[in-house]
Amino acid sequence: MIKSSLYFLFCIAALYSSPFARCQSVHSSLEVEQEKDAFFIKRIHEEALASNGAYDLLTNLIKASGGHRLSGTSNYDRGAAFVEEALSKIGFEHISTQPCDVVRWARGEDDAVHIIHANGAHESIPAVALGNSGHSDDKAVEGEVVIFYHIDSVDTYKGDLTGKIAFFARPFDQKLINTFRAYSGAVAQRVFGPNKAAKRGAIATIVRSMASNLDDHPHTGVTIFEDGVDPIPAMAISTLAAERLEHMITEGLLRVSVKSSSGEIGITSDDNVIGELSGSDYPDEIILAGGHLDSWDIGDGAHDDGSGCAHVMEAFRLLLDTGYKPKRTWRCVLFANEENGLAGGLEYARLSNERKEFHLAAIESDAGGFTPKAFSFVAQDSLVNYMKAINRIWPLLEAYSLDIQFTGSGADISPLKSQGGLLIGFRPDPQRYFDFHHSTNDNLSNVNPRELNLGAAAIASLIYLIDKYGL
Amino acid sequence: MIKSSLYFLFCIAALYSSPFARCQSVHSSLEVEQEKDAFFIKRIHEEALASNGAYDLLTNLIKASGGHRLSGTSNYDRGAAFVEEALSKIGFEHISTQPCDVVRWARGEDDAVHIIHANGAHESIPAVALGNSGHSDDKAVEGEVVIFYHIDSVDTYKGDLTGKIAFFARPFDQKLINTFRAYSGAVAQRVFGPNKAAKRGAIATIVRSMASNLDDHPHTGVTIFEDGVDPIPAMAISTLAAERLEHMITEGLLRVSVKSSSGEIGITSDDNVIGELSGSDYPDEIILAGGHLDSWDIGDGAHDDGSGCAHVMEAFRLLLDTGYKPKRTWRCVLFANEENGLAGGLEYARLSNERKEFHLAAIESDAGGFTPKAFSFVAQDSLVNYMKAINRIWPLLEAYSLDIQFTGSGADISPLKSQGGLLIGFRPDPQRYFDFHHSTNDNLSNVNPRELNLGAAAIASLIYLIDKYGL
Repeated sequence: MIKSSLYFLFCIAALYSSPFARCQSVHSSLEVEQEKDAFFIKRIHEEALASNGAYDLLTNLIKASGGHRLSGTSNYDRGAAFVEEALSKIGFEHISTQPCDVVRWARGEDDAVHIIHANGAHESIPAVALGNSGHSDDKAVEGEVVIFYHIDSVDTYKGDLTGKIAFFARPFDQKLINTFRAYSGAVAQRVFGPNKAAKRGAIATIVRSMASNLDDHPHTGVTIFEDGVDPIPAMAISTLAAERLEHMITEGLLRVSVKSSSGEIGITSDDNVIGELSGSDYPDEIILAGGHLDSWDIGDGAHDDGSGCAHVMEAFRLLLDTGYKPKRTWRCVLFANEENGLAGGLEYARLSNERKEFHLAAIESDAGGFTPKAFSFVAQDSLVNYMKAINRIWPLLEAYSLDIQFTGSGADISPLKSQGGLLIGFRPDPQRYFDFHHSTNDNLSNVNPRELNLGAAAIASLIYLIDKYGL
Repeated sequence: MIKSSLYFLFCIAALYSSPFARCQSVHSSLEVEQEKDAFFIKRIHEEALASNGAYDLLTNLIKASGGHRLSGTSNYDRGAAFVEEALSKIGFEHISTQPCDVVRWARGEDDAVHIIHANGAHESIPAVALGNSGHSDDKAVEGEVVIFYHIDSVDTYKGDLTGKIAFFARPFDQKLINTFRAYSGAVAQRVFGPNKAAKRGAIATIVRSMASNLDDHPHTGVTIFEDGVDPIPAMAISTLAAERLEHMITEGLLRVSVKSSSGEIGITSDDNVIGELSGSDYPDEIILAGGHLDSWDIGDGAHDDGSGCAHVMEAFRLLLDTGYKPKRTWRCVLFANEENGLAGGLEYARLSNERKEFHLAAIESDAGGFTPKAFSFVAQDSLVNYMKAINRIWPLLEAYSLDIQFTGSGADISPLKSQGGLLIGFRPDPQRYFDFHHSTNDNLSNVNPRELNLGAAAIASLIYLIDKYGL
């Protein structure tokens, strides 16, 4: 079986290498090296699939933390303890933690949104509070509903919002192939809408979930109130409920009620968890791969970002288990508090800059555990050709190729930009991510083991190439 | 929003076009044409996603047929009636059917496999009869179980299989990136194992399901008995049951029982359904896109091959709804009886050859409704460069690229090979297909609408390019 696989790979390699040979002056020694790399990367992928290692790590992380890993909770602490032990088993020499201040926001137990029908009857619709949402003093607030399709419309609204409830109804743009662009196009209403409405006197806000499917599951996520603005209740409603409510408003519905006991309960401390292994040849060049350990609380954070945590831990495990010795310093970083503050990423960069470190490359996985599709880069022009060369490795792998994109990296690693290294985002297939993201459906049953395992292999392959060749 | 998308596309186009400009002598008029094509293809993709058309077609097909579409059943006939009407609505001028003889095989109602413990206790394990399986005369047959990991081991088996039960236990090779290769590597035991065992005197066979996951759902599929060999009961057991049984055999388990009332009940007739639209410029050059309408009976055949049927119908719908007029003759073909006989594909090719037709290109979608990854081709060398040129269109689409492969096309279109045209297989992401394939889980809830819709757009784009430019 192995023999025939190798033969197949040779055939494919020959098939694909010819056009490059025509276009570029490729030394034959480089071709040999490229073949060696392709075999190594193929082996990494096979081990990732056969061992099921990333999926086992994710399963055990969720089990250890008790489900979600919301900032400031004991679930988070148990998750952190699990990854400390896992990093040690994987073979990292130095395991450390970095405490960072995080806001502890707690979800109320009987948060609800009700449609108030013309006859006075109340009807509950699927709703969850947004992170940082304020509370309604343990009783429901009730008011006329005013619909907005763009947050700027709040500024230009000619009426009086005082005592009313703002409904941000902008849908996810289904026609975009890249769901992350659809999400970006709609998410401002969730992040900034409630604050704008509060400043105009609204007593609560409801927001259509930023989701790629139509169902009854509301999707939470962060909302931000400016200093000096008292947080009002800010609730996400499901996409189906939003469509129905929108329709009822056109039919004359005017009033809804919102009840929430969610709110901030103080500042606490969560840890970034870091595994480090010194490089033999260039110890001052750090290669980081990371994800964020925290998650929202209504699912298990299986895709966001349990998958990223599993990806990066398993990526290093795959490389170390082959016996490969790092030439550069490797760091696996599980960041705290990405979801509602970015305290972990900011603290990591602050300390790194203080120590005058240099991250040659930082890779973040925070887009789910789906089949690998691409890596995106924040890179200087001079690096573009290098990344194209690296990218030639993947077409050698049967039924699987990656693209390069130049459109961002990851939230947690973005504060490292000033160090001038390469920032890289792992981009798996984005079609299903926003079906699950920040909802109760972000659980293990919606993660496919093979898809997740392939992500770990793709990240391991990129770490290997950057470690071996530098930039 | 449109404006900014177009600007983005221009930027990406510029980014990607430069290396091609360096490598190849590309006329600027061709570049302009390529940009026009890219915009058209982008529009097709956006319409596919926004309309949800492929998913609606699939939903309605399953509803109309009443679930599955097993050969020779009234379900199949209802499915055929639905697609006839759908093809007419899409805008095909000539709708026709081609009757073909198919074997009507019927599943028994109380088929079962039992482990017989040492103390005589019977324990049922998840099992389903394979298509074409014989029956056990309405009572269970019981015997010593003999395990085989390769069908050839039956030939070299030194013992006597008479009165025994052969267990084909070869697992799906998880380490292969392409699950279709893993399937191919194991499927012979299901297709040919029972026949070999019957010829050596075995009274029944059980086969480990060809599945990419470990669960309790057995996967059916065809098995073939030679003329003159009496079909014996041939049952698929779930992957978890197979692993457990394998373990128990090493612990000393010797006996299992198999009961089945499945079997052939005669020959009947099913229709291929064909929509045709004559080409304005080259009416004698046929471009076919097809899938198979029949399915196995224990799920709804949502991926296999309801998705393919939805893909190809929606692909033509997308093109025709833009007002595009075919230069070549288009045929949308929904084939009968792919699963247990290929009668539809063979009859279609026989009639086509009789009429001395020429299929310039035939595209089949029969690998599930997942995110598009590639088209594979059976092509002469001269076509390789052409396909590479076509393939340059996709990188212009954000977050989405396709590969070209040269590894087969589709079962139903393969009999057209002698006409010398291009045979093309649509290859979506293969990671999840064999979790569902031929099992009760092959239902609508495991099809993601966006992934399915993108497949229709990819196929529409390829039809468009071949129709416009020829080969």
